[in-house]
Amino acid sequence: MYPNSLKNLIDSFRFLPGIGQKTAERLAFSILDLEEEQIEYFKESLSVVKDNIHSCPICNTLTDDELCSVCSDLNRDNNTLCVIEDSKNVFLFEKLGIFKGKYHVLNGLISPLDGINPEDIGIDKLLDRLEKEKFNEIIFAFKPSIEGETTSLYIKKIVDGMNIKVSRLASGIPIGADMEFLDGLTLERALNDRKTIE
Amino acid sequence: MYPNSLKNLIDSFRFLPGIGQKTAERLAFSILDLEEEQIEYFKESLSVVKDNIHSCPICNTLTDDELCSVCSDLNRDNNTLCVIEDSKNVFLFEKLGIFKGKYHVLNGLISPLDGINPEDIGIDKLLDRLEKEKFNEIIFAFKPSIEGETTSLYIKKIVDGMNIKVSRLASGIPIGADMEFLDGLTLERALNDRKTIE
Repeated sequence: MYPNSLKNLIDSFRFLPGIGQKTAERLAFSILDLEEEQIEYFKESLSVVKDNIHSCPICNTLTDDELCSVCSDLNRDNNTLCVIEDSKNVFLFEKLGIFKGKYHVLNGLISPLDGINPEDIGIDKLLDRLEKEKFNEIIFAFKPSIEGETTSLYIKKIVDGMNIKVSRLASGIPIGADMEFLDGLTLERALNDRKTIE
Repeated sequence: MYPNSLKNLIDSFRFLPGIGQKTAERLAFSILDLEEEQIEYFKESLSVVKDNIHSCPICNTLTDDELCSVCSDLNRDNNTLCVIEDSKNVFLFEKLGIFKGKYHVLNGLISPLDGINPEDIGIDKLLDRLEKEKFNEIIFAFKPSIEGETTSLYIKKIVDGMNIKVSRLASGIPIGADMEFLDGLTLERALNDRKTIE
């Protein structure tokens, strides 16, 4: 029904997660309204991204330089390591500018039910780094979940005795949330992690 | 903060209407997970679409053939012409398979406030066609709006005396709608266009 070239473009957008048929149609039509140079830029970006992007050999963050911008920055705090489950979250932290230490990106979280074991997420590389770089503290910045919990505990056990402080992000009630819409686990965590007001 | 090649891809997605920064980031990351061939297909579709797609010389529907699939179909009803404000709506009608006649796509609707006058939307070409092709009926399939109304009335006036029946899509209460959420104009139209139950 659609002209072929339009149909192929609609199919291309449908490769992307969360893009259904209607949205793909809308996006494909909007391409027709772009300037020639914008389409060139789009094509060029698509070409380049997969070739250029790779994991930083030190911390696994996605980068297109030899080292990522954090590992190559000499002004970072070398005492604290934030362990992340996904490169995306490094960019999130960096965008917010709330952390001045170093990062280490795991290849996901341990999830025995999905067949993801400790050796699959690159823990060896993390441990190598911990031995070499002598951090004072590592912070787990995993999403609050069984998998996050499992991964934290697994690494904590190995690290015990290395004289490194181990912490995780606080979980609790998000700012601005309506109490009544929170799940029980979040409330329980918020209660357990309660802070003394001084 | 993002690697450059990723940033460029995010910017590319932001060219598209309705795609904000967060969505663009999500889409750009998802490109990294595509297969090499899918990215090739995507690039190829982007290249081809603008070169290949053009308006059908008879009815203005977007096509990548010499004539669009409707104009080149000898089995269509040649007595009825559906006048459309945007090529997209032809594909919508065709997808639903609810109309067997021919189409004519205008270049938008008359809107004096936006400086869009009758000569801007290609009415001449429509009139040429009406004289040549001898339709019995033309149906305006415009969105219910001041602009749709203006355009319908303008064409109706010219067509008067050409012995062509002129109609428009019924407007009224959409199936499944909650009465209380309808605007006054829709209700008024539904009342004025009420149908006798026979």
